[in-house]
Amino acid sequence: MKIIVDCQGGDFCPQEAVAGALYALAKSKTLSVVLAGVRADIESILSANKYDKSRLEILDAQEVITCDDPPALAVRRKKESSTVKGLRLLKDGGADGMVSSANTGALLIGGTIILGLGEGVTRAAMCPVMPTLNDTHTILVDGGANVDCKVEQLKEFAVMGAAYMREIHGISSPKVGLLNNGAEAEKGNAQTKSAHALLCEADGINFIGNVEAKDFLTGVADVLVTDGFVGNAAMKASEGMGSVLFSLIKRGIMSGGLRAKLGYLMLKPVLRNIKHKMSGDAVGGAVFLGLNKVLVKAHGASKATAFCNAIIKAEDMAERDVPAKIVQGLNK
Amino acid sequence: MKIIVDCQGGDFCPQEAVAGALYALAKSKTLSVVLAGVRADIESILSANKYDKSRLEILDAQEVITCDDPPALAVRRKKESSTVKGLRLLKDGGADGMVSSANTGALLIGGTIILGLGEGVTRAAMCPVMPTLNDTHTILVDGGANVDCKVEQLKEFAVMGAAYMREIHGISSPKVGLLNNGAEAEKGNAQTKSAHALLCEADGINFIGNVEAKDFLTGVADVLVTDGFVGNAAMKASEGMGSVLFSLIKRGIMSGGLRAKLGYLMLKPVLRNIKHKMSGDAVGGAVFLGLNKVLVKAHGASKATAFCNAIIKAEDMAERDVPAKIVQGLNK
Repeated sequence: MKIIVDCQGGDFCPQEAVAGALYALAKSKTLSVVLAGVRADIESILSANKYDKSRLEILDAQEVITCDDPPALAVRRKKESSTVKGLRLLKDGGADGMVSSANTGALLIGGTIILGLGEGVTRAAMCPVMPTLNDTHTILVDGGANVDCKVEQLKEFAVMGAAYMREIHGISSPKVGLLNNGAEAEKGNAQTKSAHALLCEADGINFIGNVEAKDFLTGVADVLVTDGFVGNAAMKASEGMGSVLFSLIKRGIMSGGLRAKLGYLMLKPVLRNIKHKMSGDAVGGAVFLGLNKVLVKAHGASKATAFCNAIIKAEDMAERDVPAKIVQGLNK
Repeated sequence: MKIIVDCQGGDFCPQEAVAGALYALAKSKTLSVVLAGVRADIESILSANKYDKSRLEILDAQEVITCDDPPALAVRRKKESSTVKGLRLLKDGGADGMVSSANTGALLIGGTIILGLGEGVTRAAMCPVMPTLNDTHTILVDGGANVDCKVEQLKEFAVMGAAYMREIHGISSPKVGLLNNGAEAEKGNAQTKSAHALLCEADGINFIGNVEAKDFLTGVADVLVTDGFVGNAAMKASEGMGSVLFSLIKRGIMSGGLRAKLGYLMLKPVLRNIKHKMSGDAVGGAVFLGLNKVLVKAHGASKATAFCNAIIKAEDMAERDVPAKIVQGLNK
C-alpha cells in the first residue's frame, strides 16, 4: 500500500514526519510512502539516513497550511500546500491513504471537498482512538468535527465506528455506547434521549446503552458515540486532568526534598510507562471516518514514533478498505 | 447560623454525616446544627462523643431517599424522609442552610419545589466547586442540573457563578469563561456562539471569552459557564482520567518489583497530597445556585471531613446571603 505523509504543519515537521516514515518503511515491507513537502528540506533529512529508495517518493509542495489558518480559506487558497496536493494525489488514485499532522479543520474540509463523502454518509467524523485502562481501545465518534449533530448522524457514527473497530481491532461485534449523563435509559438531554431510542432499534449494532463520561477511558465500550461538541469537551477535559496530575506530581517532587526525589527516580519507569500508554503516540492519532479514502490525523505535537504508528494504521485501514466497509454498513 | 445536615442517603451515612457535623461544631463557634435522620441512630452515634449540646438538635425522619429513587417521585412520596423534612424546615425559616449527600436529582427538584427559585431565576444550577492547578477554585455552572439549556440561561449562570465567587472566594471581579471547543471567538456550536455574543454584551460580567476543556482545571477562569450536559461530560471525563491514572500507578507499583514499591513508599506523601487536593473532600462538594435558600450537595461518598467542609461552606453562604446576592445580580 502507498501512503502519503504530509511533512508540513506539525510542531516538529518536517524532521519527525520524515523520520516516522522511515521507521514505518523499516517496519512494514508492503508499505511505500510519498513524502509531501518542500523537496530540498526532505532530501536533506533523507540524506543522513539509509532506506529502501524504491519505496519512497517525494511530492514537492512549497506552501504550508498552519494551525492558525482559517480551514476553509486555507484549502481554497493554498493549492500548492503539501496538504492540498497530498489530498489531490490521493483522490486521483496516486496513493491508498494519507497521514497528516496539519490543521484538523483544514483536513476535515479538504478531505470532505477533495476526497468526498462515502455513499450514505451525511458528514465525516474525526475520531480519536483512545487507549483504555483495560489495554483495549475505544474510538470516539465524533471527537470534534461536527459540533451540532442531528440525531440521525449519531446513528451513522455508531455504524462507522463499529466498522472501524471490526476491521482494525478485529472485534467481531463491537460494543457501541452512547456518551450520556447517566447510565439509565431514561437519562439524557433531548438529543441523547432520541439517539438512545434510535440506537436501540438499529439493526446490526451491538448497542450497550448509555455510558457516562467517567467511563471514557475504562474500555466499557469499543465505540463511544457522541455529538462532536460533547466529545471534544470530554476528551480535552480528560487530557487536561492528565496534564494537571503530572504537573502536580512534578511540583510535589521538586518541593518534596530528597525523599520525594529518590522516590521519583525509583518510580520513574512506572510513571513514564503510564505517560506513554495514555499519550497519543502509542496509538497513532485520530482517524477521519466517512470519507471516500483513508485519512489519518497525527496530532500536532507528533514525534517520529507517532507518525510511524499513524502510517502503519493508515496502511492497515487501506488494506482492509475501511471506507468501503463503512459504506456497506450504512447501506445495509 | 443554623445548618441542617441530612444524615441519610450518602454512602457512609449516618455515621460520617454526624461525625462531620461534630467537626464543624468544633471548628465554628457561630454554628449550630440540626441533624435530620433516624433519631435513635443519630443518638447512638452521638453518645460516644463530646460536643456542645446547646448547638445541636435532631430532626427525626424515618424515611430515606436513596440514589436509586426516581427524584420527582421520591420528593412527592417520601414526605417523611430526612431530605424532604429538612427542606421544609429550611423553607419555614427553621434554619439558614442545608447540607445533603443524598440523590442529586431529588435535591434539585425538592429544592426548586420546596425552597423556590430566586426572583429572576429561570432554573437552579448544580455547581461543583473545583480545585485548580493554581491553588484557586473554579465554579462550574452548570454541572448537570440543566441538560438542555437556552442561551439566556447561560447568561444567568454567569451572573450566579460570579456572585458566588465574589461572596465566598472574595474575588472582586471574577473571570467568567465560556466552556467551548476552541478559544477563538468564532468557535463553537450554535449554542455557544450565541452565548458568546450575549456574554460579550452583558453588563457587570468580567467575561474573558471561550475556555477549552483542557483548561478545565488550570484556573484560567473563576466561573466556567456551560450547558449542564456538557459540564457533566467534562467533569466526569476529568474525574475518570484521574482515577484511571491512579489505577495505572497502583498497577505499575504492584508489578514493578521492589524498586517500584520502594519508590512508591517514598513518593507516597506527594501522591496522597495530590489525591486529596483534587478530590471533592477538600472542597466540600457542589452548591445549588438560584434557590431561595442555601443548599449544598456533599458528594455521595463523603466522609466526615467532606461533610464538615460542606457545612462550613453552607454557613459561609448563609452569612453572606448568597441567594439574595444572586437575585440582586440578576435584577440589576
